[in-house]
Amino acid sequence: MISVLLVGKGNVATHLHTAFLKTDAIAVTQISSRELKNIPKADLTIIAVSDDAIAEVSSKINNKFVVHTSGGCSINELKNQTRKGVFYMLQTFSKGKEVNFNEIPFCLEATNKKDQKLLDKVAKSIGKKRYEINSEQRKALHVAAVFVNNFTNHFYKIGNDICTEHHVPFEILHPLINETASKIASLSPEKAQTGPAVRKDSKTIKNHLDLLNKEQQKIYKIITKSIQNSID
Amino acid sequence: MISVLLVGKGNVATHLHTAFLKTDAIAVTQISSRELKNIPKADLTIIAVSDDAIAEVSSKINNKFVVHTSGGCSINELKNQTRKGVFYMLQTFSKGKEVNFNEIPFCLEATNKKDQKLLDKVAKSIGKKRYEINSEQRKALHVAAVFVNNFTNHFYKIGNDICTEHHVPFEILHPLINETASKIASLSPEKAQTGPAVRKDSKTIKNHLDLLNKEQQKIYKIITKSIQNSID
Repeated sequence: MISVLLVGKGNVATHLHTAFLKTDAIAVTQISSRELKNIPKADLTIIAVSDDAIAEVSSKINNKFVVHTSGGCSINELKNQTRKGVFYMLQTFSKGKEVNFNEIPFCLEATNKKDQKLLDKVAKSIGKKRYEINSEQRKALHVAAVFVNNFTNHFYKIGNDICTEHHVPFEILHPLINETASKIASLSPEKAQTGPAVRKDSKTIKNHLDLLNKEQQKIYKIITKSIQNSID
Repeated sequence: MISVLLVGKGNVATHLHTAFLKTDAIAVTQISSRELKNIPKADLTIIAVSDDAIAEVSSKINNKFVVHTSGGCSINELKNQTRKGVFYMLQTFSKGKEVNFNEIPFCLEATNKKDQKLLDKVAKSIGKKRYEINSEQRKALHVAAVFVNNFTNHFYKIGNDICTEHHVPFEILHPLINETASKIASLSPEKAQTGPAVRKDSKTIKNHLDLLNKEQQKIYKIITKSIQNSID
């Protein structure tokens, strides 16, 4: 049995706590990052707090092996005195929405093989997909995630805005959104690309621009150009 | 039983043909747009050809009720002499990939109630989601579709490029891509937004920009700004 101490009370910590409670392989304790006076001992201490708080919180913890859960921070952000690591789950966590841990990629980093193995064992107890990812790789993943998640979601918002303005229900676009996402599993995004930009269909592009506001036009032009650059 | 003539041999025509063959409500015939000499009569003639060919092909058809399947063209693109309409399915069709017609939104337009009803009946025989959409609304949908499909797919490509450059498997991002898409069913894109742009986390944004090439930086900055404008 591996003892795990969870520090934090946010979305990530809460979802992890629920998952660990369900497995016999883990004995889990959860504390708030505001109550760091009597810290329970544990084989693994997982700090699931905001990026800005990692340094301070970790500096107050004397447990042997401390990891954070942040995609945006290097392993060196940890200021504990002993062994360090990262336990990053690449997924968006929403309050109240159940998480299927079998679908979540665990990106694991440690400074020695034994610790790496321990993280792998802990991840395996609640999930399936585990990857050994160093801080440089994780940084790249984090940026890529901004494009495929935040920026993509912003295009959903622009799509929604256009529909609202022209009195069309946005739900008509839901199946297309899902199909675009699921296509990626069997087709590279390069091969999956369709539409007026890749066809260099300047008549349709002009028609589309006529319908957009200034900011939307600017984005439409830049992405169209970038798509066309990528196939030249 | 409704008789349907399909003109065209591309992806849309082929998928429609397969679907119509399965239902007893429709008697379907398919011809190529290159063999327009002896055109079979039909209650409904569906022209599924490229946008550029709609005018010419429709001008050669004397059947009573002729529709096209294009999201990008107005109903007036049809040059037949009698009744006109549009039978637009908002989805990406790939060769060889089976289509679930129950998930496809049919955007239907006609110039009178009887024709509208006929289109609805035909769509209902192979699918579920039917919408009455006029040419102006369809134009807006078509632009919105470019954002949520083509442009989103381009962000998948950029994510893929970043991963390849930093030796991380792109598949790690697949679950996030799917979750981002499926979130939209229960949460508006505005409320679903997360990440450094909406948090105005300038430290993370700077870190991200350092890792990108010039074109990626340009796109990153513009979309970040657009996200921040949208919440001000």
